[in-house]
Amino acid sequence: MKKFSWKIKKVLLNGRARLGTLTTPHGKIETPAFIFCATKGVLKAISPDQAKTNNTQIILSNTYHLMLQPGEKVVADHGGLHKFMNWDGPMLTDSGGFQIFSLGYGSVSNEIKGIRTINKKTSSLVKISEEGATFKSYIDGSIKLLSPERSIMIQRKLGADLILVLDECTTFHAKKSYTSESMKRSHRWSLKSLDEYSSSKYYRPYFGSAGEQKLYGIIQGGIYKDLRDESIEFNLKNDFFGIAIGGTLGSTKEQMYDIVNFTANKLENNHPIHLLGIGEPLDIWNLVEAGIDTFDCVMPTRIARHGSALTRNLSKGKINIKNSKYKIDQNPLEIGCNCSTCRKYTRSYIHHLFKANEILGLQLISLHNIFFMNLMMEDIRQSIKNDNFKEVKKSWFN
Amino acid sequence: MKKFSWKIKKVLLNGRARLGTLTTPHGKIETPAFIFCATKGVLKAISPDQAKTNNTQIILSNTYHLMLQPGEKVVADHGGLHKFMNWDGPMLTDSGGFQIFSLGYGSVSNEIKGIRTINKKTSSLVKISEEGATFKSYIDGSIKLLSPERSIMIQRKLGADLILVLDECTTFHAKKSYTSESMKRSHRWSLKSLDEYSSSKYYRPYFGSAGEQKLYGIIQGGIYKDLRDESIEFNLKNDFFGIAIGGTLGSTKEQMYDIVNFTANKLENNHPIHLLGIGEPLDIWNLVEAGIDTFDCVMPTRIARHGSALTRNLSKGKINIKNSKYKIDQNPLEIGCNCSTCRKYTRSYIHHLFKANEILGLQLISLHNIFFMNLMMEDIRQSIKNDNFKEVKKSWFN
Repeated sequence: MKKFSWKIKKVLLNGRARLGTLTTPHGKIETPAFIFCATKGVLKAISPDQAKTNNTQIILSNTYHLMLQPGEKVVADHGGLHKFMNWDGPMLTDSGGFQIFSLGYGSVSNEIKGIRTINKKTSSLVKISEEGATFKSYIDGSIKLLSPERSIMIQRKLGADLILVLDECTTFHAKKSYTSESMKRSHRWSLKSLDEYSSSKYYRPYFGSAGEQKLYGIIQGGIYKDLRDESIEFNLKNDFFGIAIGGTLGSTKEQMYDIVNFTANKLENNHPIHLLGIGEPLDIWNLVEAGIDTFDCVMPTRIARHGSALTRNLSKGKINIKNSKYKIDQNPLEIGCNCSTCRKYTRSYIHHLFKANEILGLQLISLHNIFFMNLMMEDIRQSIKNDNFKEVKKSWFN
Repeated sequence: MKKFSWKIKKVLLNGRARLGTLTTPHGKIETPAFIFCATKGVLKAISPDQAKTNNTQIILSNTYHLMLQPGEKVVADHGGLHKFMNWDGPMLTDSGGFQIFSLGYGSVSNEIKGIRTINKKTSSLVKISEEGATFKSYIDGSIKLLSPERSIMIQRKLGADLILVLDECTTFHAKKSYTSESMKRSHRWSLKSLDEYSSSKYYRPYFGSAGEQKLYGIIQGGIYKDLRDESIEFNLKNDFFGIAIGGTLGSTKEQMYDIVNFTANKLENNHPIHLLGIGEPLDIWNLVEAGIDTFDCVMPTRIARHGSALTRNLSKGKINIKNSKYKIDQNPLEIGCNCSTCRKYTRSYIHHLFKANEILGLQLISLHNIFFMNLMMEDIRQSIKNDNFKEVKKSWFN
């Protein structure tokens, strides 16, 4: 039976950026790594095979979406999410908490961009109690309770390699008193998650052939460093395989970098460290320097479906293919790119696909953006290995 | 420079079904063959590479759509449609006439199903004159004239291997007098098309590297056998490489089979014979027996996008994956199928994709349906070779 392990192979000279290997029963992840979002058990416009061809190491699915559609039982009956969606590499599932809360509050990345607002009208969140989060299903309107125990039970059935405790993702707008109360409740939920995890370890659909699952704790505390300290201490003293940094990271990039640096600096080398929901290229370079090992974000595939291709040479780091200036542009999405899209298609053709509402366009840009992110992560890893991180970083943002 | 040729290798014992090879500068087509519709220079949910992996020999694009978006100049500037869309195999373009008329009348297949009606309100057809068809662009509302000469000029720029003359596609509802008048005008348009074709043979974007283009005439005459005779005579006496059977084929399957048999029977062996717009599996088996070499239809990919997968063993020849009975069905779309979808995904998973509005579902069923059609055509060819056509046909509709 394959086992889990976490090994730091090298730390950047005069820095905190680190090169690691996270081994799972479904294969190794070379870190720093990007985790692509297969929210509903699918990478939207592309297949897992296509993602693998473009160097994807690990994907993430969402407990919240899958518990509602198709329901965890359907997935478990297939032998787990790997088999259900035909992805045989490493996989992570979140706990469902983030979606329940973010559907009410808006997303973390929106908050950092200053556009996060609490929207009571569109919120599906009904109540947060000691027991868990009660919400209204967007499928049939029924009222559901997601408790820490139930989140782990569902994640056992989904069968991802890496799973998360249920937490409340607090917002920047929350007062310190609420952030503190919420954090303490999230810690109590974490202990319940750990208990359920420990007692249900043989529950994984194909335990035995593919090994067990490993649990990540989540550090809360918002923008308050004393609370972050408290949450770091809680997470380090409990038996988590990995540690994720969650909750609000502030309302500006500077605040985000500050909080992540403050937090990651205290976590040392025993755990792989995941930063939840952050994935802009520059943020990744900056936060790898803080010691983050894995990142996830819907950005690369979401913007692809809106016509935006990631590029390293243009000032904004992306081009929108719908812009009429690309109508006759016979360059690839990114000049010099070796992805399956750029080797075969021009900007002009992909512009045509978007103008004509042809969905192949979504596939082609998604593939490019996935390749781009994976190439960037590979460059990050090589530059840590070669101790030329800063030079290589500069070459990506010239 | 590669050349065109058409060779009949074998005719079914005691039948008219025939095995042929149609050679083009972009490769050979083993016939009987199915031509998949890449209407706007794209096979909708899938890439040309994916179509090729699933055994596609030849695709078709539409002059009407491409002249409006992105415009033939953009395509020509890429060196033609093959390079624009990254398809290096054989390709056919229609003349644009069918779309202009069918947008007014409804499609041929609708007519055969008895649901074709003339819809003056949604028609984009403004006027038919000796000069050509005047219509309103659905892109910008501007008035465009498609003349026989202009259709050929555009098809020269698109650069497909096989191109068609401009014709008016008459409907079942047209009186004999109109059908006759229209046919005679289509013949005059054919002569103009031939003239333009002959004088513009060096116009193809990448003539020289990929060879020339070949022109198909189109037999009109609707359901009137004396008119069909007249159109057959016209087409045979002019210098067309291939011959297509167009116009209305009646309002019932029996009438369609009767007209196609009547027409194909008189065309002998000198030309590859294409039947425009027909592609239901049973129709293909029946009309291969009439001597048809190639077929085209949007059906396999269009129904895929609505959740219908082609199957040989069920009474109706297809299943709709959105049906709730597939929610927990772990069989592949078709049991025993070896396509890239059926080897990897269950009905339950694809049902989930459609329930969750995930566009990968469109890709997965499109790939299955394309594989299915190509496998069926291969079985048809083998059964002509082995003189067991009727037995093999029966095995597809048991």
